Amino acid sequence: MTEPDRQLHETAGRESGLFIAFEGGDGSGKSTQANRLAAALEAKGHQVRMTFEPGDTGLGRTLRQIVLHSTSPVAPRTEALLYAADKAQHVAEVVLPALEAGQIVVCDRYVDSVIAYQGAGRTLDLGEIRRLAWWAVSGLTPDLTVLMDVPVAEAFAGKEDLDRIEAAGAEFHARVRRHFLDLAAERPERYLIVNGRGQKDEVSAQILGRVQELIASRDHGLTQQSESA
Amino acid sequence: MTEPDRQLHETAGRESGLFIAFEGGDGSGKSTQANRLAAALEAKGHQVRMTFEPGDTGLGRTLRQIVLHSTSPVAPRTEALLYAADKAQHVAEVVLPALEAGQIVVCDRYVDSVIAYQGAGRTLDLGEIRRLAWWAVSGLTPDLTVLMDVPVAEAFAGKEDLDRIEAAGAEFHARVRRHFLDLAAERPERYLIVNGRGQKDEVSAQILGRVQELIASRDHGLTQQSESA
Repeated sequence: MTEPDRQLHETAGRESGLFIAFEGGDGSGKSTQANRLAAALEAKGHQVRMTFEPGDTGLGRTLRQIVLHSTSPVAPRTEALLYAADKAQHVAEVVLPALEAGQIVVCDRYVDSVIAYQGAGRTLDLGEIRRLAWWAVSGLTPDLTVLMDVPVAEAFAGKEDLDRIEAAGAEFHARVRRHFLDLAAERPERYLIVNGRGQKDEVSAQILGRVQELIASRDHGLTQQSESA
Repeated sequence: MTEPDRQLHETAGRESGLFIAFEGGDGSGKSTQANRLAAALEAKGHQVRMTFEPGDTGLGRTLRQIVLHSTSPVAPRTEALLYAADKAQHVAEVVLPALEAGQIVVCDRYVDSVIAYQGAGRTLDLGEIRRLAWWAVSGLTPDLTVLMDVPVAEAFAGKEDLDRIEAAGAEFHARVRRHFLDLAAERPERYLIVNGRGQKDEVSAQILGRVQELIASRDHGLTQQSESA
């Protein structure tokens, strides 16, 4: 639940795996680029585990159904705790075992999405949302987070006269985006911010390039470890 | 998630209601005494909402089924988060509305049970379990917690030669009990510790007496408030 907790687990049990998260708003091309990266890495002979949040475990899917179809209103803290439970299970059941097996995990949405969306919803305190989400995942931090960024103006491009609901949507979108960018600014060395409206092949090449640098430095580190062993 | 959070909400939105929790090990007579108290208060004309944790909401029952019948192992943090979600929903949907309507809420198990049992399980950090549970319930603290205490020796009375599993059970029971007593010791003015092996009618009278004192001081406080208004 604490930030030290996050530090503690950051590199635990994943000497050989690599953890890449994709974050961004809906329609930012996030899932497309995540799949492209996974395919490119597999083509180069790497073992890749493509996964997503929320919902990529049996329990996660059940929880999602509960939130969506509950007959009585789900309280804000209940909802936050259920999303956190989904993340806890996903990390324990999918992400950590894959990393421990030396695989490259490519995850479509992770902790930042929870923080950005729940933070933009403004029902709960942002610091509490952050502590809860990081506690759920035992502080497991991606080696790299690819943030697919789309300026608000472009997300609502072609709509000159926004009606009230669209304007509220634009404002919410702007808050979500601001949270993503703030998180990236806190630890720039762990983020790659790419233009979600950029040319697809160029974006894919940019992401793959950065990931290959990470793989190279990881392999170099492993070599040094085995030499000194 | 913080202790200040607990302080903040302690008396929020319940000027007229009263919140009584019953805690203790299995077989301590907790549920019997909770029901007796509710019946005695109703006989005196009070509006009582008898409830329990975990599971006294539709969502809570569903979550309980998930934990019990999941096909893949439920990770420790997932389980803690699901129990916390159950509590969050129970407080939002049942306890707070009843308190706001001026009712006396009698709750069979509350936050202390989570702390005592998960703490005795020793899988997660006790401080983290506490923060999570109190955050889930927005820090809503009972006006009185009745702790039905049963010494370990008596819980295992008549079994002279404990086998290995029974001995482990006795040890676990002792840890649960220690956690309950520690929590009571932190805020003695909010607790009534009663002998879970005491004569039933005497125990009921002892509990009812303490609750009637609380009702009297509440009504006195309300009168003063309305006089000064």
